[in-house]
Amino acid sequence: MGDADRSRLGVGMVGYSFMGAAHSHAWRTAPRFFGLPWDLEMRVVAGRSADGVRAAADRLGWQDATTDWRTLLDRDDVGLVDVCTPGDTHAEIAIAALEAGKHVLCEKPLANSVAEAERMVAAAERAAERGVLAMVGFTYRRVPAVQLARQLVADGRLGQIRHVRAQYLQDWLSDPATPLNWRLDKEKAGSGALGDIGAHIVDLTQFITGEQLTGISGTLETFVTERPVATEFSGLSGTAGTETGPVTVDDAAVFFGRMTGGALATYEATRFAAGRKNAIRIEVNGSGGSIAFDFEDMNVLHFHDASEPAATAGFRRIVVTEPEHRYVGAWWPPGHGLGYEHAFTHQVVDLVEDLAAGRQPRPSFADGLAVQRVLDAVERSSQQGGGWIALT
Amino acid sequence: MGDADRSRLGVGMVGYSFMGAAHSHAWRTAPRFFGLPWDLEMRVVAGRSADGVRAAADRLGWQDATTDWRTLLDRDDVGLVDVCTPGDTHAEIAIAALEAGKHVLCEKPLANSVAEAERMVAAAERAAERGVLAMVGFTYRRVPAVQLARQLVADGRLGQIRHVRAQYLQDWLSDPATPLNWRLDKEKAGSGALGDIGAHIVDLTQFITGEQLTGISGTLETFVTERPVATEFSGLSGTAGTETGPVTVDDAAVFFGRMTGGALATYEATRFAAGRKNAIRIEVNGSGGSIAFDFEDMNVLHFHDASEPAATAGFRRIVVTEPEHRYVGAWWPPGHGLGYEHAFTHQVVDLVEDLAAGRQPRPSFADGLAVQRVLDAVERSSQQGGGWIALT
Amino acid sequence: MGDADRSRLGVGMVGYSFMGAAHSHAWRTAPRFFGLPWDLEMRVVAGRSADGVRAAADRLGWQDATTDWRTLLDRDDVGLVDVCTPGDTHAEIAIAALEAGKHVLCEKPLANSVAEAERMVAAAERAAERGVLAMVGFTYRRVPAVQLARQLVADGRLGQIRHVRAQYLQDWLSDPATPLNWRLDKEKAGSGALGDIGAHIVDLTQFITGEQLTGISGTLETFVTERPVATEFSGLSGTAGTETGPVTVDDAAVFFGRMTGGALATYEATRFAAGRKNAIRIEVNGSGGSIAFDFEDMNVLHFHDASEPAATAGFRRIVVTEPEHRYVGAWWPPGHGLGYEHAFTHQVVDLVEDLAAGRQPRPSFADGLAVQRVLDAVERSSQQGGGWIALT
Amino acid sequence: MGDADRSRLGVGMVGYSFMGAAHSHAWRTAPRFFGLPWDLEMRVVAGRSADGVRAAADRLGWQDATTDWRTLLDRDDVGLVDVCTPGDTHAEIAIAALEAGKHVLCEKPLANSVAEAERMVAAAERAAERGVLAMVGFTYRRVPAVQLARQLVADGRLGQIRHVRAQYLQDWLSDPATPLNWRLDKEKAGSGALGDIGAHIVDLTQFITGEQLTGISGTLETFVTERPVATEFSGLSGTAGTETGPVTVDDAAVFFGRMTGGALATYEATRFAAGRKNAIRIEVNGSGGSIAFDFEDMNVLHFHDASEPAATAGFRRIVVTEPEHRYVGAWWPPGHGLGYEHAFTHQVVDLVEDLAAGRQPRPSFADGLAVQRVLDAVERSSQQGGGWIALT
Repeated sequence: MGDADRSRLGVGMVGYSFMGAAHSHAWRTAPRFFGLPWDLEMRVVAGRSADGVRAAADRLGWQDATTDWRTLLDRDDVGLVDVCTPGDTHAEIAIAALEAGKHVLCEKPLANSVAEAERMVAAAERAAERGVLAMVGFTYRRVPAVQLARQLVADGRLGQIRHVRAQYLQDWLSDPATPLNWRLDKEKAGSGALGDIGAHIVDLTQFITGEQLTGISGTLETFVTERPVATEFSGLSGTAGTETGPVTVDDAAVFFGRMTGGALATYEATRFAAGRKNAIRIEVNGSGGSIAFDFEDMNVLHFHDASEPAATAGFRRIVVTEPEHRYVGAWWPPGHGLGYEHAFTHQVVDLVEDLAAGRQPRPSFADGLAVQRVLDAVERSSQQGGGWIALT
Repeated sequence: MGDADRSRLGVGMVGYSFMGAAHSHAWRTAPRFFGLPWDLEMRVVAGRSADGVRAAADRLGWQDATTDWRTLLDRDDVGLVDVCTPGDTHAEIAIAALEAGKHVLCEKPLANSVAEAERMVAAAERAAERGVLAMVGFTYRRVPAVQLARQLVADGRLGQIRHVRAQYLQDWLSDPATPLNWRLDKEKAGSGALGDIGAHIVDLTQFITGEQLTGISGTLETFVTERPVATEFSGLSGTAGTETGPVTVDDAAVFFGRMTGGALATYEATRFAAGRKNAIRIEVNGSGGSIAFDFEDMNVLHFHDASEPAATAGFRRIVVTEPEHRYVGAWWPPGHGLGYEHAFTHQVVDLVEDLAAGRQPRPSFADGLAVQRVLDAVERSSQQGGGWIALT
Repeated sequence: MGDADRSRLGVGMVGYSFMGAAHSHAWRTAPRFFGLPWDLEMRVVAGRSADGVRAAADRLGWQDATTDWRTLLDRDDVGLVDVCTPGDTHAEIAIAALEAGKHVLCEKPLANSVAEAERMVAAAERAAERGVLAMVGFTYRRVPAVQLARQLVADGRLGQIRHVRAQYLQDWLSDPATPLNWRLDKEKAGSGALGDIGAHIVDLTQFITGEQLTGISGTLETFVTERPVATEFSGLSGTAGTETGPVTVDDAAVFFGRMTGGALATYEATRFAAGRKNAIRIEVNGSGGSIAFDFEDMNVLHFHDASEPAATAGFRRIVVTEPEHRYVGAWWPPGHGLGYEHAFTHQVVDLVEDLAAGRQPRPSFADGLAVQRVLDAVERSSQQGGGWIALT
Repeated sequence: MGDADRSRLGVGMVGYSFMGAAHSHAWRTAPRFFGLPWDLEMRVVAGRSADGVRAAADRLGWQDATTDWRTLLDRDDVGLVDVCTPGDTHAEIAIAALEAGKHVLCEKPLANSVAEAERMVAAAERAAERGVLAMVGFTYRRVPAVQLARQLVADGRLGQIRHVRAQYLQDWLSDPATPLNWRLDKEKAGSGALGDIGAHIVDLTQFITGEQLTGISGTLETFVTERPVATEFSGLSGTAGTETGPVTVDDAAVFFGRMTGGALATYEATRFAAGRKNAIRIEVNGSGGSIAFDFEDMNVLHFHDASEPAATAGFRRIVVTEPEHRYVGAWWPPGHGLGYEHAFTHQVVDLVEDLAAGRQPRPSFADGLAVQRVLDAVERSSQQGGGWIALT
């Protein structure tokens, strides 16, 4: 940031699709509800299509538009680069931005391979020495109910963790007629359900428990290997054409593992769970209690306190909308629930507070690499038919 | 609007507390996700405290601030006045704005008395003849699950309606130590739970069924008649001082009624339902099926289709986040739920589309008056010990 | 019982339909799971059809069968008469049995009118002086979750009760083609939904809260006034013929009331809630907490403790299958739920323990009369259009 | 059965603890609610303690008691031997009974090893040639909601199965102070959570889908390796003494597998899921729809029909208490739920009907062996660190 006025943070965003819209909303909204240490300025958005990026800038509220993301690196008024592109470009953009002295917020998964992720971590470490900081966007950490889950574990309310049970269930590929998109292309996406949604539950379970996976055994599956080519596409849905093409990623991933504290953990990520739309389900059982979360009811955390007398013990349905709950006081009265995009707004709040304080924001690129190593281990285990892969 | 450029709608808002924050977010956000027929400009916010309103303007994103709401009426750049004040000032502000040729969005309940509401309806009718339109903010109509409920009834999926079961349950007054605020002052608020939250379920049930209440019998109750005076207040919570003062409104209202199509309807509104935070629960049973909704799980509608074979019939948990559902296509992929404030954004979208088309937006002031008449009937029934009050 | 061996209780049952089957199972099963103070002997069942009662005796496990219930009164080996007939015969049979020195278990509602119920109470009081005891069969009191609800209130965990919210929702009459049966005939049944199922929620709410209703205002409705005559009938379902006949009872009842401690209570009983099969829903909100119960999930009680810190407060889903819960220790390990008929078995257990101890079993006929008075008040309020009826 | 009167089936039961009580209730109750082709006679119960077995006979309703199970084989009045002992004695008793010409109902798991199970299957095959039939007691198949799940899959409502997700979660060992019992002793129980509860979900998922596991990868864990020795024990709970002893079985098992139709299946069985009492959770996702079941709400099946229009699709909560549902017509009206032990009664009904028809009852010993092979594969996979074990 050099000697620039630190009371302002100019943001440049690369990519303007699903994630770009969510990030834009967050940059726009965070200062309206939270008292931030810095002012935010939505300077410029970059994208490949000149018309597309110009329209996106107008719609999403960015001052400028460009088809060359590298121009962001030269602008003094851009202090942070927000990377919202598919995974195959993360490493190039993020490393260049860090080297240019720009803070970086990079969407997950950090990269499409462990090697790329390692290069990104190295770049982040070099940048950090100069006060330039990087964060990866595992946004679901910022859901208030997830924060409460983390807090309960950290406060010892669950005791020793014995079981972690994580599922990320969607169904948007359940119909074989759903057309191809970049998320089904290994070149762009790196992997399928594993990296796109499995990455989230790996990160969430490590975040909530404060433990790391020490090894896994798993398998991948592609149920539908050929799909129509989309003629147009928006969000996660598209219009099918008459051509077909190959699906080069996994449709589903299942694996189990062990955590540093001895817990058994099970994971499942799929886009073929008919009727489940965005069911991120996390359960943790410990010697002192349990928690259960499902993103389809995202304002609620279920908590069982095993120290209660048996006659009145049970999972409490905590509506996580009290002022006592993290982030919530800035919004509405109790019971007035939050939605999906609030987590992105909270991400901006946490990131800006960390940047202003000169603190390393979390999840760091190193946290992202840890997730990447788990994903890589699942792929290797699957290739060898389910055997154990230790994670160092 | 005179000969002003109709491609722009300048907005002036009066009041900047809880509702003001929600409305501001909506004016700011609607154009970012929806293609609106007009551009929106957040011109000016009015409030009584000079410092407060200036700070609110900055935080909420209004260009100007004023302590005199009447100045809004003189501004050519203000085409709509958004009334977010307590109910005792609705009539004065809304009527003056309509007479000044400004469209009006007025928070609910429409007024604190039937007489006021009638004057507002008269003013709205006069204004409508000049193309100046008024709407009342029964925002919960804009929750996608509520829209789906309305659609299912309108499509005949529930057949003849036999039962309506409506509860609005909160608990923020359950503790007698919770301090007084304007919502407990009959002068400002008109009534207590009845007008504040009972009004919503009266409107919602009439909206969803497309029927009107033809009569009611009910009773009101004030459980805690004296409370501490608040020394400061924000949202629904405050800090108690040592003085106390009287509660001059109802803490809870229960009533039953009959609807134009013959249904029996029951209502309960309370702020004393310990553990229920904002539980707006609506159930409708018809000869062809049933629906059930609870705002504490606001992205879900439960629907029972009685024409299903008995072996597989049951309430379906519809996650109302599909592109097929009203408003939802503009937001996120399926399963990525919306929150409380989205309904305010949808309200802006519907209002601006209606204004641009020259259509009467709904709920109209006349719809608001219909609700007011029900509230008034409940008060009269309660005064006479629960007898039947016919609604014409 | 005279000088008969008190270690045996011979039972004679009148009626062998739905309730007769449930009671027979209970008499048969109670001694197998519970240590009872007396041995039970299923001596004789009485019914109007010679063939029917003989077949019922064989199937249900009774030693003898008779078409004349009065013969039970003369048998020395019958110490208790179990009245499972429609309500119009309760008074005659129960009073005769008590006068003959037989203990009586009488199905609910106690009678079809207050006058009959008063005569039954008088007979029970006279009999009690001779050690002959009477109980009315509000069986749902014996569901373990209901017992826990009662316990929590009695222990003060809910503080002062402010709201009672009770619904009994069924849908077996929702289809106008469902044929007539005795439950739709005022002569036999006394009333419709009001007495059949409304009686249960009146009793349950008074039992759980330990309070009485002091007055009510209500209304009754018959949605379908003419139905096919059934050619055969079993349980709650029958086969329709081509003739039709009038429905002479209410299809639904709604009423609200106040309780001795100042609580507002709302009630709804209907057989027209499409999709609800046997949804007995009871909610109680107090200054210290709340409970919620739904018989469609009968092994669960939801409990909110308002003294919990806000960040971790919430309704606990208590699975009421622990040995600490009343009755449950005699059955299965935790989580192995009970069913509908278990409450009848518990009723036998409680009754026999009370008889052996010479204690008045509850609910007594006086308790049954108290319910009857509420039902009567609802009918009178309905006749006069919903006005308040005080209960002394 | 020789030339005995086939209208009677005399039963002899071995073991009278938890399973013995459940089976006794079933033998006693089945003829009271179902029209059986044969009369049932509860002839004799066998157990090791003379006093214990005599008391059990009285309490559970058996005519005779014996301490020598072999005497059952000599009795002409015993046509079926019901084996309710721990797994280490199943093979010996069941094989002897079959060789003596007695039908056999044997509790699950079939045996403690594949070798034993294979010997039992061979014995059953030899016996079947003589019309003597054997069944294994995977009772949960007889829960009406499970039957409906099976039916929906068999009817093609789920299309091609892609995912099976099965968990059996209990928490009775979560507290390290819970004392040892035979279920924690490898000699008696064969394995821990794996065989006791994991066996159920292996059988249930194969039953519901109609598919077999073709291979698995899994791991076992013992969290608490030393526990107090119980001084007395009843059901699943006991009183701890001061001595301790080793836990020689697994506390938890996790594994994933593939099924004959290509589905990915995940399994978890544990007694350490704090707050989960008997949560048998089964989910199946197919190309045409999904089902979800949790035994903690055993009267309910959730079913999603993917062919529904997106706007009204959702998991239906089917209350499986309609006359259309298997077994249910014999019990109570809709919504009057069944409990745990009903499945045992249904098991008797199905078994007796099959025996009377000379049909092989299912699950057969061969079905039990198939489950045993899966359990064995999980143990072997765990020993080798999670690698793939093919099932032939």
